[in-house]
Amino acid sequence: MTSVDQRKLLLTTFIRQIWDDGEADAADGYIAETYTIHHDPGDPWEGRTLDRSGFKDRVRESRAAFPDQRFDIQGLFAEGDSVVMTWLWNGTHRGDLAGFPATGRLIHMSGATVYMFDSEDRLTGHWQITDRLGVLQQLQRPLPYVHLRSPGVRD
Amino acid sequence: MTSVDQRKLLLTTFIRQIWDDGEADAADGYIAETYTIHHDPGDPWEGRTLDRSGFKDRVRESRAAFPDQRFDIQGLFAEGDSVVMTWLWNGTHRGDLAGFPATGRLIHMSGATVYMFDSEDRLTGHWQITDRLGVLQQLQRPLPYVHLRSPGVRD
Repeated sequence: MTSVDQRKLLLTTFIRQIWDDGEADAADGYIAETYTIHHDPGDPWEGRTLDRSGFKDRVRESRAAFPDQRFDIQGLFAEGDSVVMTWLWNGTHRGDLAGFPATGRLIHMSGATVYMFDSEDRLTGHWQITDRLGVLQQLQRPLPYVHLRSPGVRD
Repeated sequence: MTSVDQRKLLLTTFIRQIWDDGEADAADGYIAETYTIHHDPGDPWEGRTLDRSGFKDRVRESRAAFPDQRFDIQGLFAEGDSVVMTWLWNGTHRGDLAGFPATGRLIHMSGATVYMFDSEDRLTGHWQITDRLGVLQQLQRPLPYVHLRSPGVRD
């Protein structure tokens, strides 16, 4: 297997195990001693370099609002030290998210992420764009109209 | 020059000439007979396949709100029939944008775009994510406070 194929396989497994299934402690098998969030508008950790413990905290805190989240990988594009992943995503909104209490809604999102690797095929960071306005619009949309009989009216 | 290098050079020139400088008619030299916007949340043309005339209309209408817009290419990642471009962008808000009249503000944005090529190195479409919430937040932020004397008060 070439290094490119190896990195794509590693990245796919990383997404499944860490981000879909939430096994934060398994990050030790994928990331370098530090992991840098180079660019990620809206991410509370944007611009920070995390050690492995910090990375695991980010996974746990990020997943808390959407514990059943799933990534649907659309494409993987490898060049140099990087693999770019384009993706769709969905998750049920079960916890607080930036001031929005849980709505129980199934939220959809899409994004693109450049993952950087070191010479030992370990992840060292990412550069990411997500369609966060799409998420906000789904959280803000009105609840469906339900016709309720007034409690003051009796048959 | 390899086909990969050729495509990166073509894409860089396409961005400069068509999107930065607004030479919409020059698109004939870059795109195939049709161009498909596969995924581009918030883009009015999302999901459509345009002929060259339709593509030029999209360039003109998209640029109208930001006539001095500039892309700052961050990375190019080629694999298979695609080149992924990560980018920063800025432009002065000089025309209507989705209900926002011109503010004169310098707006910043970032995004990632997968550009697809055919066997003749012509562009056939894209898959794109932009941070449109970031743009909305810059358009919506309050104007700077200016202390105005009431017109009813005279010296």
